[in-house]
Amino acid sequence: MRKGDLGAHGANAEVTFHPIGVVRTQASNDEVRERGRELEATVELFPDFQEGLDGLEGFSHIFVLSFLDKLKPEQIGPLKVRPRRLLKKGFKLGELPLVGVFAIDSPTRPNPIGLSLVRLLRREGGKLIVLGLDCFDGTPVLDIKPYRDDYRVEEYKLAGWYRGLRDKAGLDV
Amino acid sequence: MRKGDLGAHGANAEVTFHPIGVVRTQASNDEVRERGRELEATVELFPDFQEGLDGLEGFSHIFVLSFLDKLKPEQIGPLKVRPRRLLKKGFKLGELPLVGVFAIDSPTRPNPIGLSLVRLLRREGGKLIVLGLDCFDGTPVLDIKPYRDDYRVEEYKLAGWYRGLRDKAGLDV
Repeated sequence: MRKGDLGAHGANAEVTFHPIGVVRTQASNDEVRERGRELEATVELFPDFQEGLDGLEGFSHIFVLSFLDKLKPEQIGPLKVRPRRLLKKGFKLGELPLVGVFAIDSPTRPNPIGLSLVRLLRREGGKLIVLGLDCFDGTPVLDIKPYRDDYRVEEYKLAGWYRGLRDKAGLDV
Repeated sequence: MRKGDLGAHGANAEVTFHPIGVVRTQASNDEVRERGRELEATVELFPDFQEGLDGLEGFSHIFVLSFLDKLKPEQIGPLKVRPRRLLKKGFKLGELPLVGVFAIDSPTRPNPIGLSLVRLLRREGGKLIVLGLDCFDGTPVLDIKPYRDDYRVEEYKLAGWYRGLRDKAGLDV
């Protein structure tokens, strides 16, 4: 495939989005890092987009796609990372493999889009009250999609390096 | 919550991404629409990003986040849609509910980000050969994430309107 084929959508193309809403949580960034998956949060849609939620109420779980805009300077650029959040779980840096950003759920990635599967507790007008959203307060939201059968596979395999870490850490790596 | 709180990330903020690669498929757009989930396709990363795939090989399934750039003019703007692809399955327009774009998997949405769960058949350098990617040839790819336990819930509920359609159509709505 020639690079010239890529036309207007090559590596230099730009894709521009506008947030549809924002994450609101009482939790501090540290609390979100440590136990965001156990906490309630609110996805607050901007008024212009609230109508787009109609029909979502009956789903128990949703995907929230967010823009991870709170990156530190060292998180912008690298294509390989170590799962450093495991350092807090007693792992040593040398035990953590250096893997490509597309192989891991790290905010360090060329397009920092967060994909979070959360429980939808209830809708209150333009607000979705959710459980388990691991995003900081103020994180822009780009899209919402209901969790459905076609986002599941029953038989799947995890990479060996990942399974090894998970078996030791006993949590999502 | 005051609107003023939203600061630089309000509804007027812009988020700019650059594609990391592109979808390549031999299938025509019509074939992709009709049976994209059964077809092999290639996700071809641009050279600058290929290193980011290291460590992904061991996962059997991945999420591909794409930019749905082939929208028709009438697909840009509406916040409510009918699942019109069911018209081809014998449904009448009046049988199709009008639902919010965030409650359904339609390319019509404010930020047209596609989220596709596909089987990773193999990696060939900067190319991922995948099964089940329902994207047209040339679709820009924004991100790739491995499918893991934290993207699953065992007990979940689908909205009644959706379950009703799915039960009749016998396919992903």
